[in-house]
Amino acid sequence: MVKVKVLSHQKEIECNKGDNLLELLRGNDIFIDAPCNGSMVCGKCKVKLKSGEVESQINIHVNEEDQNQGYILSCASKVIEDIEIEVPSKFSKSMNEMKIEGSDKNKDKKIFDKAINILKDSKLNFTKNIFKKYIELDEPNLDDNISDIDRIQRHIRNNFGYENIEFSINLLRKIPIEIRENNFKITITYEIKNDIMYLIDIDSGNTEYKFYGIAVDIGTTSVVACLVDLKSNEIIDKESSGNAQMQYGADVINRIIFSTKKDGLDNLKHAIVDKTINPLIKKLCNKNEVEKDYISYFVVAGNTTMSSLFLGVHSDFLRQEPYIPPFVKSPNLRANDIGLNINENACVYLAPSVASYVGGDITAGVLSAGIWASEENVLFIDLGTNGEIVFGNKDYMMTCACSAGPAFEGGGISCGMRASGGAIEKVDIDKNTLKPNLKVIGDCDPIGICGSGIIDLICKMMISGIVDRRGKINRDLQNKRIRFNEHDIGEYVLAFKDEYDIESDITVNEVDIDNFIRAKGAIYSGASTLIESLGMDFSAIDKVLIAGGIGNSLNIENSIMIGLLPDINREKFSYIGNSSLIGSYLTLISSDAKDKLEEIGNQLTYVELSVYPTYMDEFISACFLPHTNIEQFPSVKNILGE
Amino acid sequence: MVKVKVLSHQKEIECNKGDNLLELLRGNDIFIDAPCNGSMVCGKCKVKLKSGEVESQINIHVNEEDQNQGYILSCASKVIEDIEIEVPSKFSKSMNEMKIEGSDKNKDKKIFDKAINILKDSKLNFTKNIFKKYIELDEPNLDDNISDIDRIQRHIRNNFGYENIEFSINLLRKIPIEIRENNFKITITYEIKNDIMYLIDIDSGNTEYKFYGIAVDIGTTSVVACLVDLKSNEIIDKESSGNAQMQYGADVINRIIFSTKKDGLDNLKHAIVDKTINPLIKKLCNKNEVEKDYISYFVVAGNTTMSSLFLGVHSDFLRQEPYIPPFVKSPNLRANDIGLNINENACVYLAPSVASYVGGDITAGVLSAGIWASEENVLFIDLGTNGEIVFGNKDYMMTCACSAGPAFEGGGISCGMRASGGAIEKVDIDKNTLKPNLKVIGDCDPIGICGSGIIDLICKMMISGIVDRRGKINRDLQNKRIRFNEHDIGEYVLAFKDEYDIESDITVNEVDIDNFIRAKGAIYSGASTLIESLGMDFSAIDKVLIAGGIGNSLNIENSIMIGLLPDINREKFSYIGNSSLIGSYLTLISSDAKDKLEEIGNQLTYVELSVYPTYMDEFISACFLPHTNIEQFPSVKNILGE
Repeated sequence: MVKVKVLSHQKEIECNKGDNLLELLRGNDIFIDAPCNGSMVCGKCKVKLKSGEVESQINIHVNEEDQNQGYILSCASKVIEDIEIEVPSKFSKSMNEMKIEGSDKNKDKKIFDKAINILKDSKLNFTKNIFKKYIELDEPNLDDNISDIDRIQRHIRNNFGYENIEFSINLLRKIPIEIRENNFKITITYEIKNDIMYLIDIDSGNTEYKFYGIAVDIGTTSVVACLVDLKSNEIIDKESSGNAQMQYGADVINRIIFSTKKDGLDNLKHAIVDKTINPLIKKLCNKNEVEKDYISYFVVAGNTTMSSLFLGVHSDFLRQEPYIPPFVKSPNLRANDIGLNINENACVYLAPSVASYVGGDITAGVLSAGIWASEENVLFIDLGTNGEIVFGNKDYMMTCACSAGPAFEGGGISCGMRASGGAIEKVDIDKNTLKPNLKVIGDCDPIGICGSGIIDLICKMMISGIVDRRGKINRDLQNKRIRFNEHDIGEYVLAFKDEYDIESDITVNEVDIDNFIRAKGAIYSGASTLIESLGMDFSAIDKVLIAGGIGNSLNIENSIMIGLLPDINREKFSYIGNSSLIGSYLTLISSDAKDKLEEIGNQLTYVELSVYPTYMDEFISACFLPHTNIEQFPSVKNILGE
Repeated sequence: MVKVKVLSHQKEIECNKGDNLLELLRGNDIFIDAPCNGSMVCGKCKVKLKSGEVESQINIHVNEEDQNQGYILSCASKVIEDIEIEVPSKFSKSMNEMKIEGSDKNKDKKIFDKAINILKDSKLNFTKNIFKKYIELDEPNLDDNISDIDRIQRHIRNNFGYENIEFSINLLRKIPIEIRENNFKITITYEIKNDIMYLIDIDSGNTEYKFYGIAVDIGTTSVVACLVDLKSNEIIDKESSGNAQMQYGADVINRIIFSTKKDGLDNLKHAIVDKTINPLIKKLCNKNEVEKDYISYFVVAGNTTMSSLFLGVHSDFLRQEPYIPPFVKSPNLRANDIGLNINENACVYLAPSVASYVGGDITAGVLSAGIWASEENVLFIDLGTNGEIVFGNKDYMMTCACSAGPAFEGGGISCGMRASGGAIEKVDIDKNTLKPNLKVIGDCDPIGICGSGIIDLICKMMISGIVDRRGKINRDLQNKRIRFNEHDIGEYVLAFKDEYDIESDITVNEVDIDNFIRAKGAIYSGASTLIESLGMDFSAIDKVLIAGGIGNSLNIENSIMIGLLPDINREKFSYIGNSSLIGSYLTLISSDAKDKLEEIGNQLTYVELSVYPTYMDEFISACFLPHTNIEQFPSVKNILGE
């Protein structure tokens, strides 16, 4: 046995000689971001070795400067003797302390109201199939001595007309005490399904006014939860955090691979339920003085992998041809099936998936975006981790998934990060000095760059001639912000450490740019293939709705410039926020919306791009700035022509 | 902290000064029989103090001889210093090592066959609503890529016609692996209820022939379980043991009181599920090479308190006026709701109760006894712990409960025990020498006396003049077997320790006799009140069926002699065994029987004796040998007249 002292966390860990350092730290609850999940690809899991030695595999991520500072790549290191290490401060916060941009209540309200109006315009009702009612039972006596359950049942039959009631054994256990606490005056919380009343809870006295639900969007990268008052349908509060599964891989493929390892599935379920969602619920409850037992309904939207891992279901066949999801429709679930820290019998509903790579986040997004009710042709693009696209109107809807990876959420980029405090969200570059002008979320020193920032950056690098249309840095430019390493990989310095109070320079290199170009190429070619499969082209689009965590700072003009979005009338574009969360919220407050959501799940026609004949060519052509065929981007041609 | 060394169990327990010795031993899993649950009434929890001292409350149970031998009453003793004790060897066996009499397979088969014939005569079917079927799913490909659940659902819809399938999250978790293990050839185990298919399990390959159920009778004192082949409906094996709750009180009232103490309810549930039923299941599975996951159905019959404690439901209102049970009909239950060690999704069904003191053991008993189908008037008496009585025929059925206590199972009698190895089951007494002739179960040295033995004993003591009709021992008799203690309580020696290789004399005293007379008086007066309430008398009875653990050795003649049973034609009587277990078995193998059982639960009219005007007088008159009104027992009058 040897010892690893983690100075930054004041923790001492005993382990066996030869243990992998990344796995060891994770196993001891020390958060390390490792998008590639320990395959020595991303280079993000560096830690500082302060004493002792490790046995490290050679890798390209630790350069000379890193070495001098003592950095090692934890996934490439085996512990062979007692060591002392320091985990970088960027990992010192737990996942759920990381806030996502956009908790601006007014902005939120507008977006949510818009979605509600779509439902109202389509005459959907805002009634639920979950209810809370105060009732007064007859008190028992020797002549009326039926059982407690029969007494409740009799009242329900006589007053509500339901013959069948069901309840969990946990509720049964507390009924005798609860109904007597206030002389047989009780409040029942229940769900009606196929004419059966399912009792969620029984409280003594009148608690009708304590009736809450939670709507959640489980993103691969970020998770957002809304606490909703089910009496008024108002959103009381919203909280967000990173998905704690991130430490097991940045994208769904890496997580699925991790899930097949010993205890992998359990760890992933634990990460999303106990380390991400339950802390969010706790925060929402504490802040708003809501007791968890009064949360009776929980709706969640997430991609197919997130849904599957949330339930702890074996997920490996999602990534193996022929790509079969374990389930698409929500099973009947109660909170304690999953370990959610709300009322143990609360209904839990998952937005339905369509296929392995088009999940409940998309059906919920389509619900809130209103494509199902639209006369016009809508192109819906969800720029999350990976990208999913829907094209259609009220008569038909097609969908596909693009392997864009997590680039739009800052993944796959050496200095990439999510759109949270410290992220560069907007970039301009002075054409003469090549000096960047940065806008940082929270107006603090920059830590990294988020999706909208990268779009701006690459656009401006292209326009100012720092990169060519292949994404390669111009070797002829003489500027201190442009430099090349020993492998001749060029990089551009966004922020020198001396300019700010930061640990090291923030740079973007050719590998990052290449990664990003592939991501935007996947989206563009996906959209064009999908529309083409219907015998149409981009001119058929009446509206483009962009959803996802990329945030409000998305610059449409710049996105077209780099060839992420098609070069059509700018007025057709709008950003509709976290459409998955909004759809999840709509489902929570309206059973009509829930029915509509199920309908959407059945209606969406999935197009598997990988077997679509022209897709690969389209993709390769789109891996260019903006595209190999510049004619598809007349406005870019104009500007580059200048 | 002080130490208690339990020499007999090679165990050392640390505890606080002042801890109660009985509670300490129980808490450390050392079985001590304490029918009165530590209220210093029964005197059964004696242990031998080998070194050290305890602080003991004065009580009548430790006499001089006991003191000399070092016996202390554990419930009356506080630990104040380090001690060494020895727990009597009669407690050294765990509850589930104690066998109940009657595992004679042939005798069993006859009794079960008789009950099956009643069902057949009434044209009830032997089909179940639980099924096991081998199916072959279509293998998925890129063109047929619906989810695993949808694939199963599609097959079921097309081949079985059911639209709705339900399943637990645990089953969902294993489905992806299980269906692929044998190329989408699987066996489904399912329940049909209200046209919904509930999937209990999915196995890869064909396991149709592994289809089992378990039928259980939970008695207050004893528990019996049958392993049943659900394909053939044959009973594979039967196992029985004591109810491990016994250490928390011999009767339901003491257990309910214990259930209201801290952790009491949990301890009682743990005792019946984990310490009694699960070991029985394990034994049945091991002996017969049955894997627990293939046990798909579990039916249990028990009195209302046993049913409630089995589910861990708050039970205190059962014993408080107006005596309200928490439930009477079985809730929808799965094995893992309760912690039964069978398939976690197995259906669990409880025979319905009628009232707080007429439970599922009686409805199941009525089912197997066939009263619901009888043209004749049947008097059904269940001589278990307490006694329940049913009177009626196919047109009506009345029922009542008598507070007889556990006397018929050996409770409340100083040398009483259950009908297991070592119990005196038959007694005769030589009129001249007053020497008893004993028949002992297992033909070994006697340990105590069981219910049928006590009936014989009291009858013979009366006939030979040892006791008078009040149950008092004749002070004029000079015999070494008759003696009186310092309080002038008389006793009769059944077995001197020198006659056998036993630790101490086996005696029955006036207090025991008084207890037993009250028990038999409760049954007799209950039956007469119930029949009288219909404006009839005993002459209206066509048949008397006696059920319960009292066993085959019950002597009808002697039972009439002492006034337990009415003095009518002996040919009307028959012993029908453990009718609760048989009813539980019938319910397991026939859903028609289950429906009938529910009907019986609704039909049985409960008569609350305690509020019935003439009951108390009847009871007092019946607390005599055989009765204050000897005219009701002409045959006894004849014999005593001799």
